[in-house]
Amino acid sequence: MDKIKMIIDCDTGVDDALAIAYILSDPGIELIGITSVFGNIDVDSAARNSLSILELFHREDVKVYKGAEHAYGKGSYVRSNKSPLIHGYNGIGDVDLGTPKNKPEEKSAVDFIIESARKYKDELRLVFVGPLTNLADCIRKDEEAMKLAGEITIMGGALTVTGNRSIYAEANIGSDPLSAKEAFGSSLHLSIIPLDVTWKTLFRVKDIDHWKRINQAGKALYGIAHFYYVHELGGEETGGAMHDPLAAFAAKDPSIITNWFSCNLTAEESGRTIGTFGELNLKEKRHRVALDVDAKRFTDEYIKLVTQKLERL
Amino acid sequence: MDKIKMIIDCDTGVDDALAIAYILSDPGIELIGITSVFGNIDVDSAARNSLSILELFHREDVKVYKGAEHAYGKGSYVRSNKSPLIHGYNGIGDVDLGTPKNKPEEKSAVDFIIESARKYKDELRLVFVGPLTNLADCIRKDEEAMKLAGEITIMGGALTVTGNRSIYAEANIGSDPLSAKEAFGSSLHLSIIPLDVTWKTLFRVKDIDHWKRINQAGKALYGIAHFYYVHELGGEETGGAMHDPLAAFAAKDPSIITNWFSCNLTAEESGRTIGTFGELNLKEKRHRVALDVDAKRFTDEYIKLVTQKLERL
Repeated sequence: MDKIKMIIDCDTGVDDALAIAYILSDPGIELIGITSVFGNIDVDSAARNSLSILELFHREDVKVYKGAEHAYGKGSYVRSNKSPLIHGYNGIGDVDLGTPKNKPEEKSAVDFIIESARKYKDELRLVFVGPLTNLADCIRKDEEAMKLAGEITIMGGALTVTGNRSIYAEANIGSDPLSAKEAFGSSLHLSIIPLDVTWKTLFRVKDIDHWKRINQAGKALYGIAHFYYVHELGGEETGGAMHDPLAAFAAKDPSIITNWFSCNLTAEESGRTIGTFGELNLKEKRHRVALDVDAKRFTDEYIKLVTQKLERL
Repeated sequence: MDKIKMIIDCDTGVDDALAIAYILSDPGIELIGITSVFGNIDVDSAARNSLSILELFHREDVKVYKGAEHAYGKGSYVRSNKSPLIHGYNGIGDVDLGTPKNKPEEKSAVDFIIESARKYKDELRLVFVGPLTNLADCIRKDEEAMKLAGEITIMGGALTVTGNRSIYAEANIGSDPLSAKEAFGSSLHLSIIPLDVTWKTLFRVKDIDHWKRINQAGKALYGIAHFYYVHELGGEETGGAMHDPLAAFAAKDPSIITNWFSCNLTAEESGRTIGTFGELNLKEKRHRVALDVDAKRFTDEYIKLVTQKLERL
C-alpha cells in the first residue's frame, strides 16, 4: 500500500510535538514537511521545536518551513499568559533538546503547501493544528491549488461544548478568528476536529510511563508529555487532551471519528465556531465536524505505534 | 393501539397554535391538557389563544391551565418588539377568533403537570415549546414526579447554529435562561428540538393554500399560518419554521429526527445552550439533541393529518 503523504502545520507546542511523534511512528504515513505558525509559542520557536522533534526521531531529512508570525490584521504576536503554564516556556514542556542541527528552509510555508498540493493532489493530506493563518494565506494566494489536496483536516473550534480560550473560543480559532472565518467561508472542504472530541481523549502520565525507560528519545518525549499532562487540566489523574495527535490520526483514519456532523461553519469575532443560519438549508455542506470519537482505540493505537517507533530508534 | 397521552406547555404564538392543531389532528395522540406560559405573548393571551384553537377544533373538552407570568427572578413580562411582527399583536397572526367560551382552570399549570406525571407515569409525554419556567417550577416543586413522565421534549436552544434572539440565544431559552439552566442541570432526561432542526422545516404559504377553501376553521388556521410564514423569515417564498409543531411531532415519533446527539447541556446567562466541559466525559448523558431531521416526511405527514382533520370538522 502506498503511504499517505502528509504535511502538518503546527505551533509546536507539546501536543503538536506528540502529533509529529505519531506521524513519524505510523508506517502508513510519509511526512513530507512541517510548516510552522505562531500560536502556543512564537513562530521561530515553533519551527525550532519541530526541528528538535524531527532530530529526536533521527528524521533530519524532513524539512521545516516558516509561516505566519502573527494573526491576520494584527501587527505582532503576544504569547498568552496561559501558554507557558501548559506547554512550558520553551513550548515543549521545558525539556532541553539543545539547538537543532538544521534550520528552517528559505521557502515559505505557504509556497511549500501550495506547491505540494499541485504536485501530489489527492494523495496529499494537510493537517492544520495551530491558528489558521497559514491556511488562509494559502487560500488567498491560490485557492484552486488548495482544492486539489486530498483532504484538509483542522484541529480547532468547539461546536457543542464550551471553549478553552474563552467560553466561546477554542484557542486556535480564537488566536486568529479572521483567518478561520476566511478558511471556513472558502470553497474548501474541511474536516474539523474540535474540542468536542479532543477533550474526550485524555492521556495520563501513567499511560506512557514506560516511554522513559526505553531510551533517551523515549525519556525526552515522556518529559515533554508529562509537563502537559500534569498542567493542562490540573493533575496526573485528570490527564491532558490529545488535541493535535487526534487531528493527525483522523487525517489518516477518519473512521476513528464515530460521529461526523455535516454543516457549514463560520468563525465569529469572539472566536466561536458556529453554523451559519443562511447556509443551514444548503444541500452542499463544506465541513464535517467530529462530535464523537472512539477514544479507546485512538489511545491504544497511538501508544502502540509511538512505543514501537521509540523502541526502534 | 393505545393513544399517547400528551400535555403541551405553550406561549401561543402562531407555531404553538400549529402545534396544537397537529396534536388534535393526530389520531394516535390524546391531548389531556394545555398549560400556558408567557413568551411570544403574555400568559393570559397565551391561554386565551390556546382556548380559541381548541374551540376552532370543537375540542372545548380539553382544559387549559395557566403557568408562569414572567421569567424566574424577573418582576414582570415585557413583550419583545419582534414578537408582534412574527406572531401578530394578538399572538395568532391577528386573526380574530372572538372571545373563547371557556376560561383557564383554577388549578395551576405546575400542579396539573405534576398530578398528570404521577397519574399517567410513562404513558405521558410532556412537550414544552415556550420558555422553560413552568418546567423549572415543576422540578422545584416535585422533581421525583417529573422523573415518572415517559418523555419530556423541549423546543428550544441552538447548538450548532446561531440563535434567533441573539447570535447566541434561541428565543425560548433566552427568555428565561435561569429556568433553562435549572431544567438542564436537573436529573431529568430531556429530548431537545433546537433551531438546528426547526430551521430545516420551512413551510411556505403555498404548502397550505388549500386549507382556506375547506371550511371556516381551515380559513382561520390558514390566516394564522399565513401571517407567520410571510413575516418570520421575510416572505412567501422563504417560508416560516415549524419550531413547535416539530417538537410535538418528535415527541410522538422520535424517528423523525435522523441525528440525535447525546450530551449534557447547560444554558448560559446569554441564553446560549452548550455542552459543559465538566460533564463531557460522563458516561451518562441526560440530553439528546436533534441535529438533523427528515423534513420532507415531517412536512408531508403534518399537512396530511391537519388537512384530514380540518375536512372532518
